[in-house]
This record gives sequence, structure tokens and C-alpha cells, in this order.
Amino acid sequence: MAVYTHVDAPALANFLSGYSVGQPLAFKGIAEGIENSNYFLQTEKGRFILTLYERRASVEDLPFFLDLMSHLASHGLPCPLPVKCDKGHYLQTLAGKNACLITFLNGVSSDFPTPIHCGEVGDALAKMHVAGEDYDATRENDLTLDGWRALATEIGDRADEIEEGLADLIDGELTYLEANWPKDLPTGLIHGDLFPDNVLFTDDTLTGLIDFYFACTDFLAYDIAVMINAWGFDENHDFSAAHTKALVERYDGRRSLEPAEIAALPTLCRGAALRFLLTRSYDWLNQVEGAVVRVKDPKEYIKRLKFHRSVEDAADYVF
Amino acid sequence: MAVYTHVDAPALANFLSGYSVGQPLAFKGIAEGIENSNYFLQTEKGRFILTLYERRASVEDLPFFLDLMSHLASHGLPCPLPVKCDKGHYLQTLAGKNACLITFLNGVSSDFPTPIHCGEVGDALAKMHVAGEDYDATRENDLTLDGWRALATEIGDRADEIEEGLADLIDGELTYLEANWPKDLPTGLIHGDLFPDNVLFTDDTLTGLIDFYFACTDFLAYDIAVMINAWGFDENHDFSAAHTKALVERYDGRRSLEPAEIAALPTLCRGAALRFLLTRSYDWLNQVEGAVVRVKDPKEYIKRLKFHRSVEDAADYVF
Repeated sequence: MAVYTHVDAPALANFLSGYSVGQPLAFKGIAEGIENSNYFLQTEKGRFILTLYERRASVEDLPFFLDLMSHLASHGLPCPLPVKCDKGHYLQTLAGKNACLITFLNGVSSDFPTPIHCGEVGDALAKMHVAGEDYDATRENDLTLDGWRALATEIGDRADEIEEGLADLIDGELTYLEANWPKDLPTGLIHGDLFPDNVLFTDDTLTGLIDFYFACTDFLAYDIAVMINAWGFDENHDFSAAHTKALVERYDGRRSLEPAEIAALPTLCRGAALRFLLTRSYDWLNQVEGAVVRVKDPKEYIKRLKFHRSVEDAADYVF
Repeated sequence: MAVYTHVDAPALANFLSGYSVGQPLAFKGIAEGIENSNYFLQTEKGRFILTLYERRASVEDLPFFLDLMSHLASHGLPCPLPVKCDKGHYLQTLAGKNACLITFLNGVSSDFPTPIHCGEVGDALAKMHVAGEDYDATRENDLTLDGWRALATEIGDRADEIEEGLADLIDGELTYLEANWPKDLPTGLIHGDLFPDNVLFTDDTLTGLIDFYFACTDFLAYDIAVMINAWGFDENHDFSAAHTKALVERYDGRRSLEPAEIAALPTLCRGAALRFLLTRSYDWLNQVEGAVVRVKDPKEYIKRLKFHRSVEDAADYVF
């Protein structure tokens, strides 16, 4: 959770004077996301999230993310819509940071999704992949093989502070993935981080997809592999066939998986597990004193990675 | 800002099943208050704040605070209204904590109040004091002379880590206040912590008074002294006659200050400055690693205290 930058009432009023959203009625810093500062804003015209971009999201990439949200919303995806200022821009400067107003979406995220939730989000992911086909901009995935190797080097032997033998496990896994990573799968726009806390539901209906700040261009099936890791395991981090089946079946119902994509799933799932194992390990080992972020346990991804390594047949994921 | 306790969707659904507020539409942890966890909750029936009581607010005192908010709201004060569950209770248990639903108030707090804001809040304070006359419950102020002495002892010589000579300043001030604290002023319900971040405005209209968790029974004029410290100084922590005049005049227009109250103001203002100097010093010296709280600078209150010590005539506050 995060409010790194404090915005006071006069600064807010000055910022909003460039928009046609009316006067502010309510304004609260919210514990959303870990990269940026976010505020809930209610004005006379509606409800919004005001985001101040703090860290990893580099300035050059912001138009990619904001145009993407706008593109997906225009294709019927329930994602936040960036709001243009009166001069037609998404980005403004506020309290010295790049800042943007996006629409507020109803819904509550679920820590423990049900198979019904998994089906809903599988369907939405396919819809997003299809809608991405005519999104012209591209962005390289900086968290794939090369990025993982760089992160693993930076973590080094300190991985063993998390669990004895983890440095060797990571190194061996990277060597395997570098040798076996697929080369010719259908490529397009992926979300890259569609975890349960980035999906909103009202009861069993999906009402929102949020946080597109890892979106990039990569294998579509890698996005499914991310989601199998994020949605296809239970509270004890054991694989759940019911959750994964619901997710993959509904995805496949909207966008048919090619045989090569299915065959690649075990490797892609290992890669996705390693990706979150690496970023969580890095964050775990580099906790900032006084930071306002709930640091997530990397060990959950050791368990997931070991599961994927035990999978002998892609049919274990797709039934 | 604070979200100490994470509430997941099933726990929220279970909690709300005891209320008649409809299904949750939105639920976000917010950076409000420093003692408790707070969530913004929108349901089919309205907007609420869900508070989980974490620290200082002791369980026995919660009914005093909640009944008080209900009492003041029924007297027309714009304060949050605690919501009763279907069994008629304000307090529930959620995630192992005492928890309560209160109504959400529109408005934005102002870091840099104008004299107009000061007048509004002076009027509201007087209204609160009058409305408190028929609130029967009482609660001792645990942050007055005895509490200050205890806090000063706990801080001890470490005060000099904040500023050389502060330990002596505190000790001398306490000795003065113990000898000169008034004894027979009009007593009643006070807010005790009505700082700008606890007051909401829409433009220049006061729309909300929040955070009653320091409310107690004490001299009414001490509440004014708290507010002179909180509202009557500018960004550089210099005394502002314009802000203080607006505050005291509008207060006096609704509840006439007695001569004894006016005469006591310099001493009460010194006490209030010392109270915040002590709690801020304590928090400054005891910062919790990883805590999600913006620690406030105690030195601002050294400057205020020194100003109050220089005041020779109560007329300096009331004109």
C-alpha cells in the first residue's frame, strides 16, 4: 500500500482546475498498488483515482500504459479510463510528480478466488488479448529471460538467506529456461501482472481489471502462465486443478489456444514462477525502512516453481 | 496513514452480513488516522468508513466515542454517524479487532486553512461544546498534567536528541503549569484534537468533523487552546493574529467566553503546546520500523510554546 507523496487541498484544487470534473467532494489517500501514490477522489462529476507516478514506471512508458487503458476500455474491457485535461493531455505534474486521473471502478478484489472467479478472469484475459490485436504500440517485456538473469545476479548468494539452496535453485532454473524458452508463439499485448488484487468483482461478476503498469508485448500464453501461478493455487500454495481448469477453459472458449502454446505451458509456468520468485526475493532482501508496503513472501513461489518442475505433461494444466 | 490489518473479501462479506447496508461495491484501505485501520466502503446503500481499532483506543472507551458521535450528529453537528448492526450494536469483531462502520462525510481537509476556515471551525467547536452539555457520559482526559508528567519522564533526557536543552525546557514548563493550571473553569465535553486534518471542507463550508478518539471531559477553554495551536499559526509556525481572531470571534459568537476563561488562555495555550510537543517528541523518538505513519516534527511545538510564553496579556488571543 502506498501514499508516498502528500497532496494538499490547494495543490489538488490547482490540479483539478485544468479538468472539467467539477469541485472535489472527497479526497483520501488509498492503500492501492506498491509503485505509486494513489488517492480516491470524488468530485461533483464522478469518482476517480488520482495516481502520482513514483518509481519504476518510467516517464517514457506512461503514454503506453494510459493509451492502452483507453484502448481496452473502448473495446469493452472493464478497465479504468484515463481522463484528459481540458488541453487534451492525460499527464500533468502534481507535487513534482507525473500524475493522472483515471475513472474509479466498483468491485472488491478477492484474496481467495473461487473457480467461478477464475473462469471470469480467464475470459477477461482472452478478451484483453483479442482487443490488444489492434493496439499498435509495443513495449518490450523487461521482466523476461534477460531481466531475470540480471535480477538473479543482483540477488546473488543472498537468496540463501531466504531458504538454504535457493541461489542454486534459481541459477539452475535460469539455465534451463534460457535453453528451453519457446521462440515462436503467438505474441501480443499482455497484462503481465493480473493477480487477484488487480481484479475487482461484485459477487461473482468481474467488474474491473486494474494496474496495467507491467503491460508489455510478449507471448500471450505467458500471460496465462502468470495467471496459473496467481490464480491456480490454493491458500496452502498447492496446485488447484479446479481453479486452473476454470481459468484455462474460459480463456480457450474465447481465444483458442494453439497446440504449441499448450505444449509450452509447463516451461512458461516455470518462467512465470521464477519471475515472481525473483522480484519477491529482491523486495524481501531489500526492504526499505519505513516503507509502507506489505512485502510478499517469496517462498510461496519456490513451492509453485517446484510444482511446475514436476509437471510432465501440459495436459496437467489444460485437461 | 494506516492500514495495519488486512480485511479480505470473505471477511468483509461476513461482517456486512450482520448489517442492512446492502452488498459491497467498493472497498479500499485508506490513509486516514494514525491509530486505527480505516477502509473506504461503498455499498448499495451508501458510503462508509470501516474502522478497525488497533492501539491506544482502549476497548472500554469505544462506547463513549461512538455514542458521542451519534449524540453530536443528532444535534446537527456534521460528524460521522456510527451504524448499528441488525442486532443493535455499534461494535463487531473483524479480523480479531473491534470494528465499527461509520458514515462517510464529504469534504477535503486543508493543510493551510484560511481565516474563513478558522471562523467556520471556531463556530463548529462552540456548537459541539453546547451540544455536549446534555451528553451524560464522561471520560477523564488522560493527556493533561499527570499524563504530561508521565510522558516527560518516559522521554527523559532523550528530548535533547530533538533539540539541545529541550529536556530542561519541558521540565521547567511542566513545573510552571503544575503550579498555575486553572482549577475552576467551565468543564464539559471537548474534542481535544481538532486539527486541520480532522476537519473537512467543501470550498469554504465546513462539512465534517472527524476522529473523536481523544474526546474527553475537561475545561472547554482548553479545547480552544488546542485549536489556537492547531489553526492559529502559519506555515512558518509563526502566530497569526488573523487566523486566531477569526477562530475565537466565531466561537465566542455562539458560546460567550467567560472572563476567567479568557484570562486562562495563555496558560491553557502553553499546556496545549506542551501536550503536542510531548506526544510528537515521544513518537519522534520511538519510530516503529516499517510503520506506515508520517511522523510529525515536534520542533514546530517548541516554537509555539515559546510564543505562548511570550504572551503577556490574554487579549493577545482574543482582541
